[in-house]
Amino acid sequence: MPEPFEMTVGEAARAIRRGELTPVGLVESLLARVDAREESLLAWVYLDRETLLSEAEGKTAEARSGNPLGPLHGVPIGLKDIYYTAGIPTTACSKVYADFVPEFDGTSVRLLKEAGAIIMGKTMTTEFACMDPSPTFNPWDAACTPGGSSSGSAVSVAARMCPAALGSQTVGSVLRPASYNGVVGFKPSFGRISRHGVVPVSWTLDTVGWMCRSVEDVALMLQAMAGYDPEDMVSRSEPATNYVGALNANTPPRIGVLRDFFYDNADGETTAHTDEVLRRLAEAGAEVAEVAMPESINTAIEDQQIIMAVEAGAFHQPMHERQAEDYQPRLRGLIERGLSTPSVEYSRAMERRQRFVTDMRRLANRPGVLLTPTTPQPAQPDRTNTGNPMFQGPWTSCGLPTITLPSGRAGSGLPLGIQLAGPYLGEGELLAAAAWCERALGVSLAPPL
Amino acid sequence: MPEPFEMTVGEAARAIRRGELTPVGLVESLLARVDAREESLLAWVYLDRETLLSEAEGKTAEARSGNPLGPLHGVPIGLKDIYYTAGIPTTACSKVYADFVPEFDGTSVRLLKEAGAIIMGKTMTTEFACMDPSPTFNPWDAACTPGGSSSGSAVSVAARMCPAALGSQTVGSVLRPASYNGVVGFKPSFGRISRHGVVPVSWTLDTVGWMCRSVEDVALMLQAMAGYDPEDMVSRSEPATNYVGALNANTPPRIGVLRDFFYDNADGETTAHTDEVLRRLAEAGAEVAEVAMPESINTAIEDQQIIMAVEAGAFHQPMHERQAEDYQPRLRGLIERGLSTPSVEYSRAMERRQRFVTDMRRLANRPGVLLTPTTPQPAQPDRTNTGNPMFQGPWTSCGLPTITLPSGRAGSGLPLGIQLAGPYLGEGELLAAAAWCERALGVSLAPPL
Repeated sequence: MPEPFEMTVGEAARAIRRGELTPVGLVESLLARVDAREESLLAWVYLDRETLLSEAEGKTAEARSGNPLGPLHGVPIGLKDIYYTAGIPTTACSKVYADFVPEFDGTSVRLLKEAGAIIMGKTMTTEFACMDPSPTFNPWDAACTPGGSSSGSAVSVAARMCPAALGSQTVGSVLRPASYNGVVGFKPSFGRISRHGVVPVSWTLDTVGWMCRSVEDVALMLQAMAGYDPEDMVSRSEPATNYVGALNANTPPRIGVLRDFFYDNADGETTAHTDEVLRRLAEAGAEVAEVAMPESINTAIEDQQIIMAVEAGAFHQPMHERQAEDYQPRLRGLIERGLSTPSVEYSRAMERRQRFVTDMRRLANRPGVLLTPTTPQPAQPDRTNTGNPMFQGPWTSCGLPTITLPSGRAGSGLPLGIQLAGPYLGEGELLAAAAWCERALGVSLAPPL
Repeated sequence: MPEPFEMTVGEAARAIRRGELTPVGLVESLLARVDAREESLLAWVYLDRETLLSEAEGKTAEARSGNPLGPLHGVPIGLKDIYYTAGIPTTACSKVYADFVPEFDGTSVRLLKEAGAIIMGKTMTTEFACMDPSPTFNPWDAACTPGGSSSGSAVSVAARMCPAALGSQTVGSVLRPASYNGVVGFKPSFGRISRHGVVPVSWTLDTVGWMCRSVEDVALMLQAMAGYDPEDMVSRSEPATNYVGALNANTPPRIGVLRDFFYDNADGETTAHTDEVLRRLAEAGAEVAEVAMPESINTAIEDQQIIMAVEAGAFHQPMHERQAEDYQPRLRGLIERGLSTPSVEYSRAMERRQRFVTDMRRLANRPGVLLTPTTPQPAQPDRTNTGNPMFQGPWTSCGLPTITLPSGRAGSGLPLGIQLAGPYLGEGELLAAAAWCERALGVSLAPPL
């Protein structure tokens, strides 16, 4: 049996259910890991050992009671510090929210708890999930960016301080840091998981997502959190399917490769690596074909920036009026750009985005999944920014589900990843293909101690 | 057999198919009607008798050929002058578009033609389908408004100058004028019919709709025009169902009455009339229950104004920069309001509207249909405005399908109507209920000559 801190969500949950591991044992193992790694990584904002251990004791007692257990029983999960936690500060790592203590749990947090999970703590985020870098370090190389905005979630999972952590993606804030740190990252379809009780960036873009270390864990957590919530005005009522069951379909997937746009904007090492991954997947039986991006990609990146700026401006305007100087410069600039954008420009950007959404959803409705490199290059030795989100942005903008899998390492030693996208609300199909690719590639990365 | 000009679309199409009527006979009868009524009504902007008769001759020959005929074969249909017609001016009744001659037919126009319809001509609209009254007269009382913006379409159908005409609804531009003139008016779900080749007002609100004189005609025309069109970025891909077949379900519907908001804002004669209609429907077997409007209605009317202003501003900005003085005052004011609205205000209105959409679609998902008076009062003796669209606006804003049926006459002699709404993309269910109500009420109105 691996050390408890090395276990995935699925492994830990099974071990607990079988009585081979107790939630207390798991939490103690993870806390020891936090003791060893946190000082040099700065992944956590809030972690209350006492409460955590007492929670774990309760879960341990329940596990011994013989009563039926939730699918995530006793497994600790981290939360990016923008998720509302009842009675626990939710600061968005900002002076502006320094004193905010929510009175309720976000819907996704509540659902994780209902599935038996323990909340491990709150992880570091860039300020309000935007672009100013957080102090967090990349466990592969302290000189490199860990990415953002869900930096603490990615690093805590990569460094085995917790098996999974929620992040959020407005442009590229889940899959990019996941890939920079060598873990699995997932963003479901827009509307699949409620955002009620998540501090917003941009109401037409924000999507709940998470980091973990296996496709099975993605399915387990999606199963727990997917569902309609009238409290989120974009929540979809299409029923969730059996995501965990979908992983058993061991059929080689049809893979559409998007070379234009993605290869055009990636470095040579990344494109060569992606080609090598494709060769291995084809060898294992996948049917690989070239697919073209729609023309509407040409305005999609800039339009997303306009939309994000205006919607962030709409949320932050009252705070910005009172305490503009409390914001870090990039976020302040974003808010101010939004406040000064003419409404007709925002409307036109929304209209062009709608065209892009239509085009991309049609593209993703072909049988199988779409594949791209996850990022234009691996994490760079530059901590003044969080890296380039342009390979995530289009997917967030059009609401399609995406997953990144670690697929190898660059010459610098930093992780590389592949990004898969599936049909709108077709998470089952996407995860089945991702599980097949995970098995075919057999890549699991752990940063050096 | 009734005079050809008195026939509905369905009656005329059947008579042509049976050889009891020729398209030429139908067109001649309608043109005689135009000769008798147009001078005092001003419903038409463009009507080319020669082309029309030669079209009708072609359709007559086809009908005699024994080849299979389209469901609308030989039936003339009018078009609000915002529908693109290849080679025929499309002026939006504005100086700004005075010289615009499209090179292609709008998708809906093309589909009507493919179903065998003849384009009768272009009908009067308020300028760019907005609020400045058109010169059109109400055939029931020349002192009263005919409503707007689809004034010519409503009046041409009410006065039996054509059996059906396309309009469009951004706030209340189809069902209101339909009801003011005593005819059937229909607006499908947002996304059900392509708007490609329709001069826009507001891209998140504009909906193709039409006037006719029976629920059967609504179904026939919907069947011809419903469908996915990649050219319209909001087009939905959910398949159209058998709308004509749905009318045969002769089950008494469940009717949810929305008294709050609608009764609160209607005059006493209108509420008393609606109660009387409900009594008759219940007597005929309908199950009537009270239903409450969601709280989000409180901001919906004002938010729709903000959204319409900004989106109209986005479309008209370049023309407004060149020739602001060519616009009529209400439209110019709307554009200028849009251009000066802060983007964050528009974004917040869109966000609140999304909440309203969610609430209303949930409401409409109850079994059966929702019922309200169509307008707060019948058409008023005031031609300086086009009447109050507030009973349509909420349905346009949330994209639900609606229909108005003539249900009686006010003390003033002007028509009254009831408005029914169905589930999102549930036109079949809505039309089945409407056909039942039409039979139960047995009201058909014709204005005095």
